[in-house]
Amino acid sequence: MADTQVVIIGGGFGGLTVARALRHNQITVIDRANHHLFQPLLYQVATAALSPGDIAWPLRTVFRAQPNVHVMMDEVVAIDRTKRVVRLQQSPPILFDVLIVAPGSRHAYFGHEEWESCAPGIKTMTDAVRLREKMLMAFEEAERHRTTSGSSPHLTFVIVGGGPTGVELAGALAEIGRKAMGPDYPHLRTEDLSIILVEAGPRILPGFDSRLSAKAASALGHMGVTIKLNSPVTAVTPDGVQIGAEWIPSMHIVWAAGNRASPLLNTLSAPQDPAGRIRVQPDLTIPDDPWIFVIGDAAHCVGESGVPLPGVAPVAMQQGRYVAALINHHLQPPERSPFLYADRGMLATIGRARAVAQFGPIRASGFPAWILWCIIHIFFLIGFRNRVRVMSEWIWYYLTFKPGARVLY
Amino acid sequence: MADTQVVIIGGGFGGLTVARALRHNQITVIDRANHHLFQPLLYQVATAALSPGDIAWPLRTVFRAQPNVHVMMDEVVAIDRTKRVVRLQQSPPILFDVLIVAPGSRHAYFGHEEWESCAPGIKTMTDAVRLREKMLMAFEEAERHRTTSGSSPHLTFVIVGGGPTGVELAGALAEIGRKAMGPDYPHLRTEDLSIILVEAGPRILPGFDSRLSAKAASALGHMGVTIKLNSPVTAVTPDGVQIGAEWIPSMHIVWAAGNRASPLLNTLSAPQDPAGRIRVQPDLTIPDDPWIFVIGDAAHCVGESGVPLPGVAPVAMQQGRYVAALINHHLQPPERSPFLYADRGMLATIGRARAVAQFGPIRASGFPAWILWCIIHIFFLIGFRNRVRVMSEWIWYYLTFKPGARVLY
Repeated sequence: MADTQVVIIGGGFGGLTVARALRHNQITVIDRANHHLFQPLLYQVATAALSPGDIAWPLRTVFRAQPNVHVMMDEVVAIDRTKRVVRLQQSPPILFDVLIVAPGSRHAYFGHEEWESCAPGIKTMTDAVRLREKMLMAFEEAERHRTTSGSSPHLTFVIVGGGPTGVELAGALAEIGRKAMGPDYPHLRTEDLSIILVEAGPRILPGFDSRLSAKAASALGHMGVTIKLNSPVTAVTPDGVQIGAEWIPSMHIVWAAGNRASPLLNTLSAPQDPAGRIRVQPDLTIPDDPWIFVIGDAAHCVGESGVPLPGVAPVAMQQGRYVAALINHHLQPPERSPFLYADRGMLATIGRARAVAQFGPIRASGFPAWILWCIIHIFFLIGFRNRVRVMSEWIWYYLTFKPGARVLY
Repeated sequence: MADTQVVIIGGGFGGLTVARALRHNQITVIDRANHHLFQPLLYQVATAALSPGDIAWPLRTVFRAQPNVHVMMDEVVAIDRTKRVVRLQQSPPILFDVLIVAPGSRHAYFGHEEWESCAPGIKTMTDAVRLREKMLMAFEEAERHRTTSGSSPHLTFVIVGGGPTGVELAGALAEIGRKAMGPDYPHLRTEDLSIILVEAGPRILPGFDSRLSAKAASALGHMGVTIKLNSPVTAVTPDGVQIGAEWIPSMHIVWAAGNRASPLLNTLSAPQDPAGRIRVQPDLTIPDDPWIFVIGDAAHCVGESGVPLPGVAPVAMQQGRYVAALINHHLQPPERSPFLYADRGMLATIGRARAVAQFGPIRASGFPAWILWCIIHIFFLIGFRNRVRVMSEWIWYYLTFKPGARVLY
């Protein structure tokens, strides 16, 4: 088995978990970026609370102590099942015996891909850094406007999508805008800033218990976020969004609605769902190919309840451990028991000292849920250095309201 | 005096020192960037040892507790002495009663400004982040080359200029290249990386005692840096540099030679030296205008020894304190004693645990000089948070050889 070539596409939660659990194979990890990204905290980079280096870790450093892992920074353009190779943009094709496909996803614009340029999402570090730059420049612009003309500068942020990403981003923006930016922009008035969270369905955080949704909505309201429910977006332009008959003028629209799987999956010639995800077998393989696995949010994997598992880190990590076990024990299809997801619960933070949590029958909100959220996120960060840095940044911010990463360049 | 309008152009060491020392005036600080930059550590951002947020501090936060200071992020395009206004790129002109001109400098290309695109310098955060990206991508590229073709990828970095900036950058590159990158790029060989420090004069660190120059040269040599002395650059292209008859192929050329003052100074209609700096009066004003001051590396200010003072932070800060005292006491020209620079010494670091220091008759090198360098730089960083972060990054790096800021985005 030592000469089995394992190729892993993607250094996210799924790919990384597989690579770290395989000790006896030759492994190649291919990623477009040079780092593993702790995506759950990406919105904090976008809102200047954390620095990029705090929540990302170079893949080469992650695997420094694992000489069986070879890291390549490259983009996979196609998977050739017949020839058993992965085609790359900058390097020659790579042969594989076992392939793990974990390329992640981008946001879905539901057939309106042209909206992406006006309403970018935050999936990568580049996305987050760009949003941060736009946000900081918008505050500077608004302050300049107020100083020189005295008129209102229309600083309106619209966040489309009321899932955890949208809620966390809206809360962080409201907090940074009102609490942290206030003292730094003395001419800006509270009424100059509006943050609008737009959700197509009847409530925010639809995956959570409805009482927690209500608590989150009330907390956001207190923080000054306007929530628009039952409001599917019908048009997006650089100047605003259309919601049915209502037009919201805004130059700062962020997309946090829905996922679209990587287009790379189209080259796999395997059944896909409408979001582009591969409909995997119970052992996470594609039909008739027991050594090609698809994991993470690239996989349409049906859970016990009959609905597809959500595209979150715990799913990807459990799938990664499951796949690594199959490879380590070289289990053939008949010997494999199906992948089962153990749901450990859900958490979403709304702001400083405010969060909602749901673990089986247990519901929590407010400060206890927030402390839990902090602990869990610190725990899952890779590396001692990042844990210490993020924790100290949070404590610093909690005490001073001076977010740490507001340098424009 | 409370209604005297003081305008400060530039939030560097000079401008910041003036603004912090003036408590009774209305002050406007104008800077192109939104942050004060601790330039002496900029090469550590360029070599991925520190994050941008570690050595920069938003100007608005610096002045949060000083309500008499108004911060504007804008670019000054001209100074109109007759109308007593400063013209800005994005805002209406600003009237001043007292003006402090501290716009800093860019690198000098000695009449070959077209070299700048092939051999950029590091003066701003943008410069540093770009160099970091280029360096990290070059390592990735070289590793890919070695992996797929097995041939040498010519990873040659050329640093032009043997002053403190060039020496510190060469040392940091050698260290990151050999010690930190080595374990992360298993296919790269030691001989794939060359770092060449090019100096036109007969020795590096010409401002230092010649024994310290020799020690620095020997330390750099041990670290694998090739030093070329008496080597004025005669041509720069995207593929390399020409030094007399010798051609050095390199796609990574960094300029660290000489300064050229900000072109804004040309609008002041005051005598300038060949580098574009204003030849200031003994009280740092321009002729016939006792309330326009030029400080920092924009000023040609002759010291006690008859040579112009160097463009370093201590000079700018002492000038800032001097100017602030004149304004606070509203001293008219006849009552002013001339500015006198108190030279506290010079320091340059060569790498981890290696530095040279010179204080009056005292010379130090090696580990003691390096510890001194660390303490002084930590001490002068603004803000508790940045001091703690930089110190912990240095300790972390000293112990692990894993530089903290290698995330590409």
